[in-house]
Amino acid sequence: MRRLCVIPGDGIGQEVVPVAVRVLERLLPDLQVTEAEAGWDCFQRLGQSVPEATLQAMRDCGAGLFGAVSSPSTAVAGYRSAILTLRQQLALGVNLRPVRSWPGLSDKSGVDLLILRENSEGLYVGKEHMATADLAIAECHVSRQASEHIAQRASEIAKLRASRRITLVHKANVLPLTCGLFRDGCRKVLDAHGLSALVDERLVDVAALHLVERPEEFDLIVTTNLFGDVLSDLASHWGGGLGLAPSLNWGQGIALAEPVHGSAPDIAGSGRANPLAAVLSAGLLLRYHWQLIEQADCLDGAVEGLLRSMGKADWGKQTTRRVEQELLARL
Amino acid sequence: MRRLCVIPGDGIGQEVVPVAVRVLERLLPDLQVTEAEAGWDCFQRLGQSVPEATLQAMRDCGAGLFGAVSSPSTAVAGYRSAILTLRQQLALGVNLRPVRSWPGLSDKSGVDLLILRENSEGLYVGKEHMATADLAIAECHVSRQASEHIAQRASEIAKLRASRRITLVHKANVLPLTCGLFRDGCRKVLDAHGLSALVDERLVDVAALHLVERPEEFDLIVTTNLFGDVLSDLASHWGGGLGLAPSLNWGQGIALAEPVHGSAPDIAGSGRANPLAAVLSAGLLLRYHWQLIEQADCLDGAVEGLLRSMGKADWGKQTTRRVEQELLARL
Ligand SMILES: CC(C)[C@H](C(=O)O)[C@@H](O)C(=O)O
Ligand SMILES: CC(C)[C@H](C(=O)O)[C@@H](O)C(=O)O
Repeated sequence: MRRLCVIPGDGIGQEVVPVAVRVLERLLPDLQVTEAEAGWDCFQRLGQSVPEATLQAMRDCGAGLFGAVSSPSTAVAGYRSAILTLRQQLALGVNLRPVRSWPGLSDKSGVDLLILRENSEGLYVGKEHMATADLAIAECHVSRQASEHIAQRASEIAKLRASRRITLVHKANVLPLTCGLFRDGCRKVLDAHGLSALVDERLVDVAALHLVERPEEFDLIVTTNLFGDVLSDLASHWGGGLGLAPSLNWGQGIALAEPVHGSAPDIAGSGRANPLAAVLSAGLLLRYHWQLIEQADCLDGAVEGLLRSMGKADWGKQTTRRVEQELLARL
Repeated sequence: MRRLCVIPGDGIGQEVVPVAVRVLERLLPDLQVTEAEAGWDCFQRLGQSVPEATLQAMRDCGAGLFGAVSSPSTAVAGYRSAILTLRQQLALGVNLRPVRSWPGLSDKSGVDLLILRENSEGLYVGKEHMATADLAIAECHVSRQASEHIAQRASEIAKLRASRRITLVHKANVLPLTCGLFRDGCRKVLDAHGLSALVDERLVDVAALHLVERPEEFDLIVTTNLFGDVLSDLASHWGGGLGLAPSLNWGQGIALAEPVHGSAPDIAGSGRANPLAAVLSAGLLLRYHWQLIEQADCLDGAVEGLLRSMGKADWGKQTTRRVEQELLARL
């Protein structure tokens, strides 16, 4: 029996997560679902964007599905984005973000890449201070352990995908120690897995340009936290944009699926929210965390069939409901 | 009488810089040119990638044109990329990188944007250390002074361009102190220039995606060092790629024009190097540093005429020479 901790969060998170849960339940009839809270609304009620009970529920279940959270428009003391807290507190050290061309939707065919983003450190360690009133300093941390951990995941995935290429993206020409440690830590593990012949490197500026010019040449991209943040948003264009972009925050024996889009307060409650990114994120749980390849293929196939027949679904006020009906009919 | 310090550097730098110099000489008959050296070849001969004499020549002239430099394939003790040394030693605090659609060349028309990249700090301050054998830390510095300086330049340029919009790009949701100081420092200066109504903000990940999806909506982009590095390479796609991308490193009373491309050792000496990025960079000296708008318009017009008639020039072994002939014929 598998357990899932569901954290809808704010805005359209409340609308898209239930759809993804019903899709998962169709594929895993004995799935046991627990609901937990997080986000801005939660912060306003409880003074915490991620209550301890939510962390505990995630640990108990070992798998979760996050919706989206809103942020206050100006900084609020004590408030930190819930997803950052979840990644850190649950040691979700890798963020997996696939991008593929969808039939009838993407302006380029043949894109099928996977960005593995380091998810715990870099400039995200939260170590910033004012050195003087006029100088702010942020620290960027890169550890051997985290670099080896992401490369370990990359090796497993490379075998699963039968990868043709693994591209390490960094900026070691300007940051020889931090990016150098990342690169060398990754190379060591990839070498140990006999994958050295597939490994390629690219500077982050060049990688950004190549992701625009020839995305179909990339396969598995392994990079640091902030570079992964930027490159995955950029690359999501080839998969139909942020509205369709899925992700999986992945630790040791625990994973949290998360659509990359935000809480979209402008359309929340209108019925227009497209649940496909949440559904595809649930598919990543199936494929990578639970390793239920057959069910994952089934879910991806249903999404592909839906997109092939309708293009990017927008049925106005009926989008959420219609996408759900169409998907369930195809499973 | 205007003076120009010419630093061809390595590889195709030696081929494209002379073309840009002859174009400038045609427009400014009394231009006085001094040659100086920098780069990897220079480092191998003199043990320094930027000799003091080169810095002095730049200070004497107040304006320079840099070609490109090679880097050793593995790290060499004491070697640092010449362009980083030049930017830092000459206090070239802003890097200006325009991107525009060229007729018959770009896949999208209507792109006409200018990226202003902070050029002296951020992760480029060179403050990295190993905290332990397994943890590397890099510092990212943001000062009020540098942030206000770039906004000052942005204000001047916004008036020159009759800008519709100024977009501040940062990641203040994750880096509230450093990116927050950058944003607030910029806003203060832009406000003082009466430009607040034009100012917009975007997170760097979203900006990267929007630069792919709808580049024609951007006008003047103001951002920190590394974000500017990544976004300008990405955006160069809309201007015909890196091979056509110009830039200007700009300080107080001193400026160094620089094509963004590298030294291209694979085509060096073959006559195939396209000098247009170097020529367009020289055009930025005319327009922004010397404020010779008429000559700058004339140069841009010649490039536009050339591209309109031929598309992206590649005449095989004749490229460098033919582009020069065509340009001089149009001036
Ligand atoms: C919301 C924000 C903190 C987050 C990030 O920067 O990681 C988001 O952009 C993402 O990519 O998941
Ligand atoms: C060569 C490298 C150090 C440089 C940079 O990172 O600034 C280059 O990418 C650029 O954009 O001018």
